[in-house]
Amino acid sequence: MVVSLSDLNGMALPAFEAVVGPTFELAPWVAAAAHAKGPFATVTALHAAMMEAVRAAPHETQLGFVRNHPDLAGKAARAGDITVESRHEQASAGLDALSDEEFRLFHSLNDAYKAKFGFPFIICVRRHTRDSILRQFERRLKHEQDVEFTTALQEIFYITRLRLADAVIGDGMPKVTGRLSTHVLDTHVGRPAAGMGVELYELAGDGAYRIARTVTNADGRTDAPLIAGKPLPIGRYELRFAVGDHYRNRAVEGGDPPFLDIVPLRFSIAEPEGHYHVPLLCTPWSYSTYRGS
Amino acid sequence: MVVSLSDLNGMALPAFEAVVGPTFELAPWVAAAAHAKGPFATVTALHAAMMEAVRAAPHETQLGFVRNHPDLAGKAARAGDITVESRHEQASAGLDALSDEEFRLFHSLNDAYKAKFGFPFIICVRRHTRDSILRQFERRLKHEQDVEFTTALQEIFYITRLRLADAVIGDGMPKVTGRLSTHVLDTHVGRPAAGMGVELYELAGDGAYRIARTVTNADGRTDAPLIAGKPLPIGRYELRFAVGDHYRNRAVEGGDPPFLDIVPLRFSIAEPEGHYHVPLLCTPWSYSTYRGS
Amino acid sequence: MVVSLSDLNGMALPAFEAVVGPTFELAPWVAAAAHAKGPFATVTALHAAMMEAVRAAPHETQLGFVRNHPDLAGKAARAGDITVESRHEQASAGLDALSDEEFRLFHSLNDAYKAKFGFPFIICVRRHTRDSILRQFERRLKHEQDVEFTTALQEIFYITRLRLADAVIGDGMPKVTGRLSTHVLDTHVGRPAAGMGVELYELAGDGAYRIARTVTNADGRTDAPLIAGKPLPIGRYELRFAVGDHYRNRAVEGGDPPFLDIVPLRFSIAEPEGHYHVPLLCTPWSYSTYRGS
Amino acid sequence: MVVSLSDLNGMALPAFEAVVGPTFELAPWVAAAAHAKGPFATVTALHAAMMEAVRAAPHETQLGFVRNHPDLAGKAARAGDITVESRHEQASAGLDALSDEEFRLFHSLNDAYKAKFGFPFIICVRRHTRDSILRQFERRLKHEQDVEFTTALQEIFYITRLRLADAVIGDGMPKVTGRLSTHVLDTHVGRPAAGMGVELYELAGDGAYRIARTVTNADGRTDAPLIAGKPLPIGRYELRFAVGDHYRNRAVEGGDPPFLDIVPLRFSIAEPEGHYHVPLLCTPWSYSTYRGS
Repeated sequence: MVVSLSDLNGMALPAFEAVVGPTFELAPWVAAAAHAKGPFATVTALHAAMMEAVRAAPHETQLGFVRNHPDLAGKAARAGDITVESRHEQASAGLDALSDEEFRLFHSLNDAYKAKFGFPFIICVRRHTRDSILRQFERRLKHEQDVEFTTALQEIFYITRLRLADAVIGDGMPKVTGRLSTHVLDTHVGRPAAGMGVELYELAGDGAYRIARTVTNADGRTDAPLIAGKPLPIGRYELRFAVGDHYRNRAVEGGDPPFLDIVPLRFSIAEPEGHYHVPLLCTPWSYSTYRGS
Repeated sequence: MVVSLSDLNGMALPAFEAVVGPTFELAPWVAAAAHAKGPFATVTALHAAMMEAVRAAPHETQLGFVRNHPDLAGKAARAGDITVESRHEQASAGLDALSDEEFRLFHSLNDAYKAKFGFPFIICVRRHTRDSILRQFERRLKHEQDVEFTTALQEIFYITRLRLADAVIGDGMPKVTGRLSTHVLDTHVGRPAAGMGVELYELAGDGAYRIARTVTNADGRTDAPLIAGKPLPIGRYELRFAVGDHYRNRAVEGGDPPFLDIVPLRFSIAEPEGHYHVPLLCTPWSYSTYRGS
Repeated sequence: MVVSLSDLNGMALPAFEAVVGPTFELAPWVAAAAHAKGPFATVTALHAAMMEAVRAAPHETQLGFVRNHPDLAGKAARAGDITVESRHEQASAGLDALSDEEFRLFHSLNDAYKAKFGFPFIICVRRHTRDSILRQFERRLKHEQDVEFTTALQEIFYITRLRLADAVIGDGMPKVTGRLSTHVLDTHVGRPAAGMGVELYELAGDGAYRIARTVTNADGRTDAPLIAGKPLPIGRYELRFAVGDHYRNRAVEGGDPPFLDIVPLRFSIAEPEGHYHVPLLCTPWSYSTYRGS
Repeated sequence: MVVSLSDLNGMALPAFEAVVGPTFELAPWVAAAAHAKGPFATVTALHAAMMEAVRAAPHETQLGFVRNHPDLAGKAARAGDITVESRHEQASAGLDALSDEEFRLFHSLNDAYKAKFGFPFIICVRRHTRDSILRQFERRLKHEQDVEFTTALQEIFYITRLRLADAVIGDGMPKVTGRLSTHVLDTHVGRPAAGMGVELYELAGDGAYRIARTVTNADGRTDAPLIAGKPLPIGRYELRFAVGDHYRNRAVEGGDPPFLDIVPLRFSIAEPEGHYHVPLLCTPWSYSTYRGS
């Protein structure tokens, strides 16, 4: 149930808490502290007030708050004792489809993490691929205690920013979405390449999982961005273009088998809220790509 | 045992036949016919004379000659009743390492082929990857009888040209080798990329088999060509460049994870005796490739 | 004075003629013939009706109509006895600023043309640079009489299409404008190049005349297209980018003097109603361009 | 008259001085000091000994030595009272073909320079274009006295290194030559572009002076480097490629007029002893270049 910022600004504490409380999981005091600072001119300002409430809390309160977060891929995720928002987010990186071996790996990393830091591993899974979560686990396990505590809070702020953007609509929305787009230019004829098959894969370990499949339109673009309307999960990707078919259909000589058939462009996304434009310029004998805009 | 063309030109028939006879498998009459046309100014002329002997023979003789060739991947390859030259060549495309399923597929294609045409499937395996052999099987099964008979003879001529180039040294050697090379230019600094890891994979089905692993030298090239001194097997390949490590080692900002890490260039080779130069021009944010020279 | 198509559709002949008559210079019968075919659903349909009136006229009428057109760069242009529309159009390609020598050349070509064909040289000057007009003169002087007569009519149709688009507003406007744009991507840092100086030159003979001067914005584009809202004059152009200054301002090493300083992109426009996107991808050591979209 | 290093090593002082004396203009003491340090294993070591003799001299001696150098573009160049080596070198940058205005500019810069520093402006003209000499004049006029004195000595060392490399042949020759080359790859067909016209211009002020004109060979290269066997003069250059003709001759559609006709690549040379490879990759609709190797 989405609420407008102006309606929210007019609410008494109980109603306010019902809306924004679930944002900061199991910590109703955050909503209460924020309510005292309203009304808010922007949704971003509301989120800033909620973050400020966490930052201003005594360390013991912060620690309790962090400890209250569910284990990623852990027992809590199975037992159903987490908020609906948590459940939804964990699905997006494929953590709900772990193999037994992966499940054990995640679990064991999580145990090592909790043993070292005394709180569960928290990460905004909507901003990461499965691969990236594993990398972050390994990297953050090496942190000092205070660095990691700050990192955990930052991840909570990413999570809550997304939740708030889902829950409240109004002026000054925080930037929580990114965009991945492509464009194919056929420099053999100096025109956009229309009707070329394009696939997007998320790379995980040695595997590649197709997450989009489309065809270029008359302008050489895809009708919709490859990813949009949500954070771009940090991770490795591969675009695959059916360049060989494109020229075969136009009876352009390119060798038998053609010098270029499926052209893969492999790249990583590091900024979930950024715009990644990854175009292809091609002839039957050459191609180039770049991070565009 | 390699013989010089001038020595060969001076030989009586029995010695001559001992040298060039195995070239045209189980067909001593080809060597005899060629001997009558000597001496030869070039090795290419010697091979032309041997091909002419085959072309001039009555169809029944030609057919018997073709039928005498061993089954590819078939019983003959297991039983050891083929010439040493055949055995060596079949190994080069990995046909000696077929899985049981692949073995059955090849065998069944071979049976269908023999049933349709009345002679075994002949292909110069040193000029093809395993993938390409399968493609040729499927394509040639659709041929008319006379087209396919000509194709089979042409493949025998490819095979014998290679054998002759192995057996005789002299003027006018036939062109039987190709070359695959690369070059990495770091256009971020306008210099060759030195010390960059490069791997070459042969693609087969959905798999990729690494066939070379090297590092660029100070000129951005590899010390030796990636493939040289033999035909380039027709097929699909992928070069992989460690672009991410290159820039990480030079502390050049490229994102975390880096926008470009392993850069794959996927291409096909169609001319076994050609020169394929497949360079990479890169920055941390862009790359291009082309069939060069 | 611009009139709407619906108003025009409701007009009696005299008012109708006052609006669209000047479109087909000194030939009121064209407007009259078109009026009889109205009302028109689109401005394009109105123009088609006017062209049809010309095509349906007896050859002698057509010839008189063509002969009534003013001499390009000739006496008529000086004496002021042409319509206001003609005068305006001839200015746009710089024909009003010819040197004495150029004036004589144009005049002599025009005389040769009239001597051969019996009517003045007609060209839609808004669709051509000065250079292109000269080229067309030379090319069309070699035409056969009937081919050239058709060409002259076609040019009149280009002229009148532009005039009609200026005079009448409504549904289904004819496409009479093109667009030239650019974009600079700095692949050294994987971002648009902001604040880079860009100049556009029209090339004429051995000279270059600057027709635009601007700076890229934060997205690497120019705030306005380099040419828009009118036909792109057919001819040769050069874009010049201040790449050296861009990297000097960012303290990026590029040599002394820098390997790339002013980067010129020289290209021609052949389709006045087309979209030409001519981007630059650059590092201090490399650049590329292409006809984009 | 070229002498071998081994012959030179065996010479008594008078003969030795006759060979290498003119290298350090009007300073026979340099040759004498070097002779005492012989024999030399390499020509580079000989030059190092001569430079060392200059560096070890008292400042007054150095100053006298520097002052003895002829005025660039000044009276000495007209009166014939300089060594043959000086005369030859000044010709190479076109200083012997100055217009009256340019002559006055050079003369006035030279006067300002002498007034400030007390010695003539010395520059190794074989390492600079006319444009670059003017730039150096302006830049060096701003130097502090001691910085400029060191710069003047460095220029003398460049001059003498070139003279020595002309006068003595032997092991360990100093690197005094550079190379400028190009290569055209037609990525429309994936092959080198053969028979394409290429011109090289030296840019000076707003003008362009053609210094080479050639045609690509079957490998897309020029039979000889564009510049080789001498230092590459520091300065601005433009390569021009007849891309339009190339595709017109092959009946490849590229627009009328063609989108690309003459393609200019404008670049600077900063390292006279370096290798500049400036290739062109092109289709009728795109091109790219880079500093290659």
